[in-house]
Amino acid sequence: MATIEEKLAELGIDLAEFKPFHPAVAAGVVTGNLLYVSGATPKSAHLFGRVGDELTTEQGYEAARECAIGQLGYAKATIGDLSRIKRVVKVLVMVNSVPGFTGTPAVAHGASDFYREIFGEDGSHARSAVGLVGLPFNGSVEVETIFELS
Amino acid sequence: MATIEEKLAELGIDLAEFKPFHPAVAAGVVTGNLLYVSGATPKSAHLFGRVGDELTTEQGYEAARECAIGQLGYAKATIGDLSRIKRVVKVLVMVNSVPGFTGTPAVAHGASDFYREIFGEDGSHARSAVGLVGLPFNGSVEVETIFELS
Amino acid sequence: MATIEEKLAELGIDLAEFKPFHPAVAAGVVTGNLLYVSGATPKSAHLFGRVGDELTTEQGYEAARECAIGQLGYAKATIGDLSRIKRVVKVLVMVNSVPGFTGTPAVAHGASDFYREIFGEDGSHARSAVGLVGLPFNGSVEVETIFELS
Repeated sequence: MATIEEKLAELGIDLAEFKPFHPAVAAGVVTGNLLYVSGATPKSAHLFGRVGDELTTEQGYEAARECAIGQLGYAKATIGDLSRIKRVVKVLVMVNSVPGFTGTPAVAHGASDFYREIFGEDGSHARSAVGLVGLPFNGSVEVETIFELS
Repeated sequence: MATIEEKLAELGIDLAEFKPFHPAVAAGVVTGNLLYVSGATPKSAHLFGRVGDELTTEQGYEAARECAIGQLGYAKATIGDLSRIKRVVKVLVMVNSVPGFTGTPAVAHGASDFYREIFGEDGSHARSAVGLVGLPFNGSVEVETIFELS
Repeated sequence: MATIEEKLAELGIDLAEFKPFHPAVAAGVVTGNLLYVSGATPKSAHLFGRVGDELTTEQGYEAARECAIGQLGYAKATIGDLSRIKRVVKVLVMVNSVPGFTGTPAVAHGASDFYREIFGEDGSHARSAVGLVGLPFNGSVEVETIFELS
């Protein structure tokens, strides 16, 4: 069976490196068998801006996927070996969006589909997908994740 | 002593069924003795829209209560037997609201009062109640909950 | 080595008292070795309002610090003895801000720096820092925290 790292390689995905931007903010923290990962925004310049006017829902989907890739990068920076991840527990998808934007689930699927692709059944998760008025560095989406470790 | 299900029946409450809307999104996920439930929005058509102009704070309260009922529906879909719930731990209430709306606590009480009504002392919880710029399907409120299981 | 309470006294910090504002909302809830604390907004009148027009990023930083002090007050109200806190796990910083405000990390550092100042290495944490359209009582920032207890 392909490992997580092999699946990522197959998909041509390089994990985003976590570059600490503040001494008090960690890529993630392990407590018991839970791994809390810091929120990630997309890295690609064309995925910055506000969904609903500057970006389409489809671009939001792409951004959410990129955030989830970032989450695995932060997870790797925290625990080293991604095979320690047993399942995805909880995902919060926050979409930088125009007032009244109702397509947050369609955007959030970008993260959810990625987790499912990588972890199979263990990638399904509890989720909220909501619209925010602004995100760090004008990212279009921010995703934060709780993983269970084995 | 009345069980949770009996209390719900007394109140004439039918738990909202969780209809999976995406293969990667679960009604809830159990890890250790914690149950993380996916965010729920209200089901009633008159509780859609934005609090502070389209809806009053009182309607927001009603919507938050309906979200909490939805949370128990999702919990039941996940664990089957609601008597396994030991207590409510943490509630995040997100209100689809106009800029500068400051009545989010009064809205959130709709969820908090419901949990207290059903679980008594064990229904009290840590909470944040905040204003969002948009919610899935134009719901007026979204609630997500962490329960402790016995 | 200085205790948490001694460090707070040195800094001239009086912990904000948690005044329950609703019977169902607790200062915090302990489950296993995790302490979930309710969201806190700043207490100082000059730290109310919206960051990006009514308040500067620097005032937002000050507000976030005050929220984190409030979080320790709520923690003390819940567990009594702050020396039981082993580390800060996860912080969510929500900034009441104008559309498109991108400085949420700079605001959030006010909370993060405070935790680092008080807990040293154990004060670093996973974090998200996001822009909201409204907060309780028109607070400029709301912080919610998960602590690990020993």
